[in-house]
Amino acid sequence: MIKLNIKTHKQTEMLDITGEVQEQINQAGINTGLITVFIPHTTAGITINEGADPDVQRDMLMEINKIVPFQDGYRHAEGNSAAHIKASLFGSSVQVICENGRLQLGTWQSIYFCEFDGPRSRHAWIQY
Amino acid sequence: MIKLNIKTHKQTEMLDITGEVQEQINQAGINTGLITVFIPHTTAGITINEGADPDVQRDMLMEINKIVPFQDGYRHAEGNSAAHIKASLFGSSVQVICENGRLQLGTWQSIYFCEFDGPRSRHAWIQY
Amino acid sequence: MIKLNIKTHKQTEMLDITGEVQEQINQAGINTGLITVFIPHTTAGITINEGADPDVQRDMLMEINKIVPFQDGYRHAEGNSAAHIKASLFGSSVQVICENGRLQLGTWQSIYFCEFDGPRSRHAWIQY
Repeated sequence: MIKLNIKTHKQTEMLDITGEVQEQINQAGINTGLITVFIPHTTAGITINEGADPDVQRDMLMEINKIVPFQDGYRHAEGNSAAHIKASLFGSSVQVICENGRLQLGTWQSIYFCEFDGPRSRHAWIQY
Repeated sequence: MIKLNIKTHKQTEMLDITGEVQEQINQAGINTGLITVFIPHTTAGITINEGADPDVQRDMLMEINKIVPFQDGYRHAEGNSAAHIKASLFGSSVQVICENGRLQLGTWQSIYFCEFDGPRSRHAWIQY
Repeated sequence: MIKLNIKTHKQTEMLDITGEVQEQINQAGINTGLITVFIPHTTAGITINEGADPDVQRDMLMEINKIVPFQDGYRHAEGNSAAHIKASLFGSSVQVICENGRLQLGTWQSIYFCEFDGPRSRHAWIQY
């Protein structure tokens, strides 16, 4: 298992970690197989989505924050129930195929760490 | 493949199955690798989220039942379309890294079987 | 990696690809293990859900299109931000256990390619 450190800067944020994941794969000398990136947090998730236009990430966060409001009569005393729900809707891991040492992603795809209760120091775990 | 029996008790419910999954891993003598827990149902799902405060599960169910109402002009005659949608939003499998025979989860993480159309007798399948 | 070609016919559509995935597994002579089906797109996803009553797919699409409206003050110039969000909510890959050459799915489960910005020519990648 490879551990990645991630620093988030906002309350909700999508951070492109494709480059870091690829770099770890290079360093580990991984060639071919399935890579899993797992998020060991309950108020952050991970997803694969468009890496070209930053407006996509802006729209995605705007809309998920509207679908799951920050305040909605939640009981959890920490006040971050919305972040827990968003984490489960986006999911805690992604799978990416690796061939000849390269992550196989579609033309527009990037891997995003999804912060829903930041800013914080976070982690991602890579398994192959 | 290891088969797990699960009994749910409410219409919507998040059941912590971390202990049962760990026990099956112990019994199978699994040491290191990636574990997949797969749910063979279409009105139940699986997720990884906070295992400490039961209010988190309560808030998550309250909110997902609000986002996807039980009744909303659905056509499916069985009357459980909302459960089908929730199952797809949460997902049908989770991946967890295993090292030295122990599931590697974040401090606050538990594995939850998510019942969206109970109570029922359910199953989870573990593959390693 | 096995590449599957998929042709979608509507703006939003759930296409049952279970048969094609099983056929590729037969042709590749895969016997036992975990199969990953990965979608290399950012406005389409994949899910496992009911394959019996077409009304379930109809209800699922009707409801997700209501939860994530096509227009909602999005900034992304291409006008398909809703599709990007739906893709992340459904997810970019599914895992299915394979035993003796057969996909192990629950009684009612089928694998669905989920088009959220069609119609288009699409792909699915199978890794084992």
